[in-house]
Amino acid sequence: MTNTLILLRHGQSEWNQKNLFTGWVDVRLTEQGRGEAARAGEQLAAAGILPDVLHTSVLSRAIQTANLALDTADRLWIPVQRSWRLNERHYGALQGLDKAETLAKYGEEQFMEWRRSFDTPPPVLDDASEWSQANDPRYAGIDGTQPQTECLKDVIDRLVPYWEQQILGDLNAGKTVLVTAHGNSLRALVKHLDGISDEDIAGVNIPTGMPLVYEINADGTPAGPSRYLDPEAAAAGAAAVAAQGKH
Amino acid sequence: MTNTLILLRHGQSEWNQKNLFTGWVDVRLTEQGRGEAARAGEQLAAAGILPDVLHTSVLSRAIQTANLALDTADRLWIPVQRSWRLNERHYGALQGLDKAETLAKYGEEQFMEWRRSFDTPPPVLDDASEWSQANDPRYAGIDGTQPQTECLKDVIDRLVPYWEQQILGDLNAGKTVLVTAHGNSLRALVKHLDGISDEDIAGVNIPTGMPLVYEINADGTPAGPSRYLDPEAAAAGAAAVAAQGKH
Repeated sequence: MTNTLILLRHGQSEWNQKNLFTGWVDVRLTEQGRGEAARAGEQLAAAGILPDVLHTSVLSRAIQTANLALDTADRLWIPVQRSWRLNERHYGALQGLDKAETLAKYGEEQFMEWRRSFDTPPPVLDDASEWSQANDPRYAGIDGTQPQTECLKDVIDRLVPYWEQQILGDLNAGKTVLVTAHGNSLRALVKHLDGISDEDIAGVNIPTGMPLVYEINADGTPAGPSRYLDPEAAAAGAAAVAAQGKH
Repeated sequence: MTNTLILLRHGQSEWNQKNLFTGWVDVRLTEQGRGEAARAGEQLAAAGILPDVLHTSVLSRAIQTANLALDTADRLWIPVQRSWRLNERHYGALQGLDKAETLAKYGEEQFMEWRRSFDTPPPVLDDASEWSQANDPRYAGIDGTQPQTECLKDVIDRLVPYWEQQILGDLNAGKTVLVTAHGNSLRALVKHLDGISDEDIAGVNIPTGMPLVYEINADGTPAGPSRYLDPEAAAAGAAAVAAQGKH
């Protein structure tokens, strides 16, 4: 017996559009991103895959995405749980920088290491920076663990306990679970679920606004390969993510 | 020591606009209603009254109102709890009927008794009606208590336990609590809080989209009179509610 897990990366954000490193900076969806979120809900409804419970990060772009998708899927009323452990990777001192300018300034090798290195975080973000979340009230409860930068390994370390204790708990209660989160927190979860190596995860890109569906065994392992509800659109979206910063 | 409770009735819904009895029928906000909800969030932000936790009904119009208000108040990330106990009064066999036609057909006395009688519910709604929620999955957990009609007294009976156990618990944990709900579930809560008599509650009308703020003692009693953040607009809105069906 398996239960259904749906992963959904937020639609285009204001800073996706501007091609800036975002991380924990709390930007909103663009109109395009709102449309992507609504269509994700239509895909779920059309496939008859209706979430019973929602988990989101505490970042507005993921919450807006969930709200819009659940509205079109007619599931606004399901229970919700939010956690910073589903947040995007904290991008450290890169938060707020232009991706293309950063690529031009530091070169492709350093740029790709910051974007895709498994265990080397970017430099820390100073608490005094305008892009710091050091004094953001939504993180008041996580004193001592609030990051100033993260690599993908750091994201896995803070995300997997939430997966095991909260999300898997809901799945094993027989619920269909929707997780709306971010490019790198979802890469971290996919790496964990699919047992992808530290090297190969660098080549995995998650498209925005495309529901990715797993069937999950009671022990938390996938019962088979995951699938996008719209595979062609998802492949095009993943290619676009891979090309970011290259233009 | 007191804690802050904010009550917010959803903005104009599609059926407010059409002047139909709505009850548990799950209609959405109109564009006007969406604007009201966003402005409610602006009022909260301007007053510096920022909710730490949200309670909503399981009806989409209240959830949409909360989502829009919290977006403009920059508090999308707060924890959420939903309950059918905060739902609008179930209007029984009146659900789906035009208010003006109902007034013309049955006369003012019967009409006002259905709208404002404290303890006489309208006729029950048949489970086979297109406006019944008998098979709605959001109520799957409340077998045996799911109403087919309600008077205001019935709403109080199902709402007050939720107030005492859930909302007051959050207040007494030091949280500022936002409740987004409905004309009659909020009248029920206001009656309970302010000790309004069964007769006088008939004259109390709650305007849409206007934050109503209480300071609450640890025993659940108000520390003083409640206040609307925009008293003039709230008075105009309440007068408009009182006039419904009269045109």
